[in-house]
Amino acid sequence: MSKPFRRILLTGAAGGLGRQLRGPVKDFADVVRLADIADMGEAQEGEEIVQCDLADRDAVLRMCEGVDAVLHFGGISTETPFAPIMNANILGMVNLYEAVHKHGIRRVVFASSNHTMGMYRTTDMVDATMPLRPDGYYGVSKVFGESLSRFYWDRFGIETVCIRIGSCFPEPANRRMLSTYISLDDLVELLRCSLTAPRVGHTITFGVSDNPSVWWDDRHARHLGFVPKDNSAKFASMFPAGDYPPVDDLATIYQGGGFLYSGPQYPQE
Amino acid sequence: MSKPFRRILLTGAAGGLGRQLRGPVKDFADVVRLADIADMGEAQEGEEIVQCDLADRDAVLRMCEGVDAVLHFGGISTETPFAPIMNANILGMVNLYEAVHKHGIRRVVFASSNHTMGMYRTTDMVDATMPLRPDGYYGVSKVFGESLSRFYWDRFGIETVCIRIGSCFPEPANRRMLSTYISLDDLVELLRCSLTAPRVGHTITFGVSDNPSVWWDDRHARHLGFVPKDNSAKFASMFPAGDYPPVDDLATIYQGGGFLYSGPQYPQE
Amino acid sequence: MSKPFRRILLTGAAGGLGRQLRGPVKDFADVVRLADIADMGEAQEGEEIVQCDLADRDAVLRMCEGVDAVLHFGGISTETPFAPIMNANILGMVNLYEAVHKHGIRRVVFASSNHTMGMYRTTDMVDATMPLRPDGYYGVSKVFGESLSRFYWDRFGIETVCIRIGSCFPEPANRRMLSTYISLDDLVELLRCSLTAPRVGHTITFGVSDNPSVWWDDRHARHLGFVPKDNSAKFASMFPAGDYPPVDDLATIYQGGGFLYSGPQYPQE
Amino acid sequence: MSKPFRRILLTGAAGGLGRQLRGPVKDFADVVRLADIADMGEAQEGEEIVQCDLADRDAVLRMCEGVDAVLHFGGISTETPFAPIMNANILGMVNLYEAVHKHGIRRVVFASSNHTMGMYRTTDMVDATMPLRPDGYYGVSKVFGESLSRFYWDRFGIETVCIRIGSCFPEPANRRMLSTYISLDDLVELLRCSLTAPRVGHTITFGVSDNPSVWWDDRHARHLGFVPKDNSAKFASMFPAGDYPPVDDLATIYQGGGFLYSGPQYPQE
Amino acid sequence: MSKPFRRILLTGAAGGLGRQLRGPVKDFADVVRLADIADMGEAQEGEEIVQCDLADRDAVLRMCEGVDAVLHFGGISTETPFAPIMNANILGMVNLYEAVHKHGIRRVVFASSNHTMGMYRTTDMVDATMPLRPDGYYGVSKVFGESLSRFYWDRFGIETVCIRIGSCFPEPANRRMLSTYISLDDLVELLRCSLTAPRVGHTITFGVSDNPSVWWDDRHARHLGFVPKDNSAKFASMFPAGDYPPVDDLATIYQGGGFLYSGPQYPQE
Amino acid sequence: MSKPFRRILLTGAAGGLGRQLRGPVKDFADVVRLADIADMGEAQEGEEIVQCDLADRDAVLRMCEGVDAVLHFGGISTETPFAPIMNANILGMVNLYEAVHKHGIRRVVFASSNHTMGMYRTTDMVDATMPLRPDGYYGVSKVFGESLSRFYWDRFGIETVCIRIGSCFPEPANRRMLSTYISLDDLVELLRCSLTAPRVGHTITFGVSDNPSVWWDDRHARHLGFVPKDNSAKFASMFPAGDYPPVDDLATIYQGGGFLYSGPQYPQE
Repeated sequence: MSKPFRRILLTGAAGGLGRQLRGPVKDFADVVRLADIADMGEAQEGEEIVQCDLADRDAVLRMCEGVDAVLHFGGISTETPFAPIMNANILGMVNLYEAVHKHGIRRVVFASSNHTMGMYRTTDMVDATMPLRPDGYYGVSKVFGESLSRFYWDRFGIETVCIRIGSCFPEPANRRMLSTYISLDDLVELLRCSLTAPRVGHTITFGVSDNPSVWWDDRHARHLGFVPKDNSAKFASMFPAGDYPPVDDLATIYQGGGFLYSGPQYPQE
Repeated sequence: MSKPFRRILLTGAAGGLGRQLRGPVKDFADVVRLADIADMGEAQEGEEIVQCDLADRDAVLRMCEGVDAVLHFGGISTETPFAPIMNANILGMVNLYEAVHKHGIRRVVFASSNHTMGMYRTTDMVDATMPLRPDGYYGVSKVFGESLSRFYWDRFGIETVCIRIGSCFPEPANRRMLSTYISLDDLVELLRCSLTAPRVGHTITFGVSDNPSVWWDDRHARHLGFVPKDNSAKFASMFPAGDYPPVDDLATIYQGGGFLYSGPQYPQE
Repeated sequence: MSKPFRRILLTGAAGGLGRQLRGPVKDFADVVRLADIADMGEAQEGEEIVQCDLADRDAVLRMCEGVDAVLHFGGISTETPFAPIMNANILGMVNLYEAVHKHGIRRVVFASSNHTMGMYRTTDMVDATMPLRPDGYYGVSKVFGESLSRFYWDRFGIETVCIRIGSCFPEPANRRMLSTYISLDDLVELLRCSLTAPRVGHTITFGVSDNPSVWWDDRHARHLGFVPKDNSAKFASMFPAGDYPPVDDLATIYQGGGFLYSGPQYPQE
Repeated sequence: MSKPFRRILLTGAAGGLGRQLRGPVKDFADVVRLADIADMGEAQEGEEIVQCDLADRDAVLRMCEGVDAVLHFGGISTETPFAPIMNANILGMVNLYEAVHKHGIRRVVFASSNHTMGMYRTTDMVDATMPLRPDGYYGVSKVFGESLSRFYWDRFGIETVCIRIGSCFPEPANRRMLSTYISLDDLVELLRCSLTAPRVGHTITFGVSDNPSVWWDDRHARHLGFVPKDNSAKFASMFPAGDYPPVDDLATIYQGGGFLYSGPQYPQE
Repeated sequence: MSKPFRRILLTGAAGGLGRQLRGPVKDFADVVRLADIADMGEAQEGEEIVQCDLADRDAVLRMCEGVDAVLHFGGISTETPFAPIMNANILGMVNLYEAVHKHGIRRVVFASSNHTMGMYRTTDMVDATMPLRPDGYYGVSKVFGESLSRFYWDRFGIETVCIRIGSCFPEPANRRMLSTYISLDDLVELLRCSLTAPRVGHTITFGVSDNPSVWWDDRHARHLGFVPKDNSAKFASMFPAGDYPPVDDLATIYQGGGFLYSGPQYPQE
Repeated sequence: MSKPFRRILLTGAAGGLGRQLRGPVKDFADVVRLADIADMGEAQEGEEIVQCDLADRDAVLRMCEGVDAVLHFGGISTETPFAPIMNANILGMVNLYEAVHKHGIRRVVFASSNHTMGMYRTTDMVDATMPLRPDGYYGVSKVFGESLSRFYWDRFGIETVCIRIGSCFPEPANRRMLSTYISLDDLVELLRCSLTAPRVGHTITFGVSDNPSVWWDDRHARHLGFVPKDNSAKFASMFPAGDYPPVDDLATIYQGGGFLYSGPQYPQE
């Protein structure tokens, strides 16, 4: 069967998620251009390799040439001091959308994050229209990205699906991830829906499997057609209930979990 | 097993949906009175045939005599110049409710349409409380019908279920119908629920199967007990994703799809 | 000072409101074309007179020629049997918008009615996004008009301000009108705002003065810039409080007031 | 496998639900303390028996000593004159929370009721944020309980899950219960989720199986992780549809069903 | 001018607010029956005196005989241990509504309190549909009263206006009262509106003047026609701004103010 | 009368708004520290002058030393290429909040902008909870600032009032500003309220006078106590209504007005 696209770009291809996605995204295009600031090894069949610093405007412009659609997984994905986050996630995002605009690329799938809303409580139900409450510099940088892509849709008609990805690991690493878990298969299916839906405008969706405990209501993205197949129930026994966590445990109170402890509150000299 | 009603009336019995429903609705009543302006052939066992122009007030009054409940599928179901729509869908609707009122009939199931909201975008999630946005004269006539039946409920206690039917065909005819598809079995089940629920007041429901891509949120009709059994996933491969549709393609932008091109904008001399 | 328009059309110029508005609207245009099915007397300076049946498509087309904007006050404004309402308020509305479309007229101000929502209770607060609940055939015909004009905006970009007019009389005639009263001056100012605001899209506004008792929340039309100067407080002593009305008095329960008793429930042979 | 708690308290252990839960709740703790004003028979292995009048403050204080969490099913569960409801459900609730507070117990699961909202209509969809509309003194007493526990959370950080339990019987006893049915297994699972979720704050949830006809939207409690396994579809044939109920049948109009006929309207001398 | 009522009942006539209202309410009725558990002195012209314990069912029944409408200001109005609150505000409220029901009285104006929502933050905007968050036993007892009166409206058609009164004192006693202040004149006008509006159903309104700082949105009671004439701006200079209050000052964080420190947290032996 | 603060900091003191505010803000503190990257002239009595580049972390840290509260008007306030906006409005904002955090400053008043929501239409009513829709890089940078300050409130308890300032000029420069106008006096009063309210948490408010035409609903900031005294009605005659603007005039369609034409769409080599 022919593939839906001729060439798509996957940024962040050397990162944690990028490496997992490198194989599966080949189903979406005849050629997958892989980009990262780090080394990605040899190009395999159907791959192109572009090493690129997102903060380098001209390099980003070249990276986007001839591309039909972008899966933007590049940038910093943890809490760090602000400077590297600014370069990769803020300046890099501006560079990307200027390049997308100039090359006439029609759609971007942007790896946003649940940390855009990490200061909601674990008893809250959040949907895509509610005010954002990031849990650190990383989260604020993703708010910037969502807002920038909204502007590019409203003003220039460039479509973006912002996926607020939960926790995409083979297994949940802690009890919180029973709520935020997304399997790799579900994430790949969500990418497929995001890339191929006839029209997405500016859609914000929550990247999460069909877990028993739910924090996020994806009703505003149901047009994408994403139906998760996996859920975290099978991992529940890894985290047996016991005593209640301490009442002042930020990682239990807030959806952001451990990120609450890794943000800008620590000395950054 | 005995049937829930003695006699129900199915209007529009010679129309596209009416012909498909003629058989299945026999499960709902000992006698099904079939009505249409067109020829319906011979009455079968358990059937009564009444040829009737909905614009003829006296004929409609006679048509409704002795009936326990009405399935109102009569009228025009495509975009046409306004005159025939007015006669069948507006005057006909008034005639019907006056007759229902005079005969003391307690409940009507009204075939409304997704074209009452066809000017919402394909990225919108619409529920039953949101303002209507019809996509042509046909859609506006269905808005009239929903509003008239709301009045008859508020003022006289006559119950109506308005079903905003999606696309009831054996197979989707285009990619849009992956979102609007309803199988005949699901539609029949929805009719059953609408007819037999103990109390419906004035309920607006969306007639659609459990499709992956969802535009409509049926939360305000969950009391009916309708649980769709089918979905359009099995037809997805009929419409492989390819290049994005033109940015100005009204049939992709708006939920109304092709109806956007068949409305009153064309010369109607 | 020069007037904002060259020529505007006032339909229903021989009706109750039309006669009151005939003078004041002259401030809005060099020429006011007055139209009605009834006799309007002689044209005064700055006036043109066109006698026209709204149900006559060709006559309506001629009526609209050369017009910059329309104040549509024509049609039936009380509860009657359905036939005349259909001709004037439904067919007439379609004829008007087809003519507006063909002549490239950019904006209509439509005299809708509080009877589009007369089945809300007098303890309800209604805004422009809530589902309509008409209180009779007249109210349903105005729902049709609002919905038709919404379609013409969504599909063709013709702007309409729908004014759900309360009770525009020199004095309230009953206690209900303490809530629905709008002075003529306030109505004229609301027309001025509706005609001259730079952009109105499809705006629904409530035509009511700044009365102490409020049923309608106009928040979705605040962009028009209408600030009422009058209110009904000065009339309160005309209706001293006394015993409570009977518990089953429809005119007290529902916002529609006396219209509840004049609708289709009576024999209409 | 070790059990999540050392000792939990089940009040109302001799009541209708209490007797059914006595066995299953043993999975939640090494020791289950059973309490009731009525006789509960002999303590079985892993059980402690405390006979206690909830209106007796000191007794309630002793009842709560050494407990990790409380399942509060005690009190009156039907419509009666107000005095016994006040003693058991109002004074008893205050006594319980004062004891919980003094002993430092962290969490309560409170058996609230669908009768806190029994005056909503059977065509309404109710969620946990909507104003309560009780259907009698019993319902009002449960409103008190929900509100008191909200205060204890807001002010003192004591967590409560309020379960608005539907109808927990082996089989629905009437057609209404097709909407309100919850199987015992589903109720036990909901208790397990309520007891063991890492953080619940003050959660209001609807205790109901996955029935076809739905009146309640549990979206604000999805963090609990409760996924019902049963539904009432298998009982539908017990209540075949027939003639519509009388239009003024309170038990069909309102969600409270038969409770509408057992409240304070009857002489209570 | 004749007065709107023949006889109204004012309970709590010896209390803080009752004494202030005793004079002004004479404008509402030919006879004002004053009731309290405490001594009220001699009856003046147009007054009747009834000493009555609200917890005494028979006495309450007699107190209500021959009355057209009730202003219910009786009961405990501060934070105390639960027993007296239960007797006066809970049992007393039930006794009152049973008496109102039996005597066929059509309307009650109930002095509810801002302490039904005292655990909202001083940066929150609260309206009448939001979940209640009381700040102590007093507040919870008022939640009970609002809920009980809702039941009597839904089930028996007895109308109630619940006034969540702010702070009715000659002058604000602290900075918080700049937000909660209501002048006596405004309160009297709100009582007049509540008593004389043609229909109120079950209305919840906020008893507050037109103060610059607003915590409560009265939009759902605008039908009453209450327009406050006073505001707290003139008192602002009594409380000059200075250093910010301590971050953990409950009386600044929560709307309930000082009540946060007087509730059930203190030993109550 | 003593002033509420000992020392406040006004950043951007050499900018358009800063120069106007330099005098009036002296009422708020014994000492006003003025900061800007540009020259501010001589310090007057009660002033301190600090020249500071917001992108210089150490300089910002020094700038904030000994300050009780911050009025942050610094940064770029027009549409420019992204680099200077990033330095001043993004990196500068991070530097400011890190300094505020380290020095224990309790409150910031942040000059956000209506351009955070410039892509809403001029017929929309926007409130503080709706998703942001910036109209260019400047607007996106202000979204970043609002989100960063939300994080510092949620995580560290540092209070911020974000003022989405409209158009603060002596006179409106065009018709759009009849909707966005705020007088200098009203802005100063809003600053006073924002600085001195006992508690603001993270408040978003709209900086606009009481104009006839309203786009923004400030209900979520009513606790601040800001009551505008001025409005734009007196300027209306400067912009007489005439022909409607072209249908595709972005500056009429969108709230952002002329900013729509100055953003990143132009070549920026």
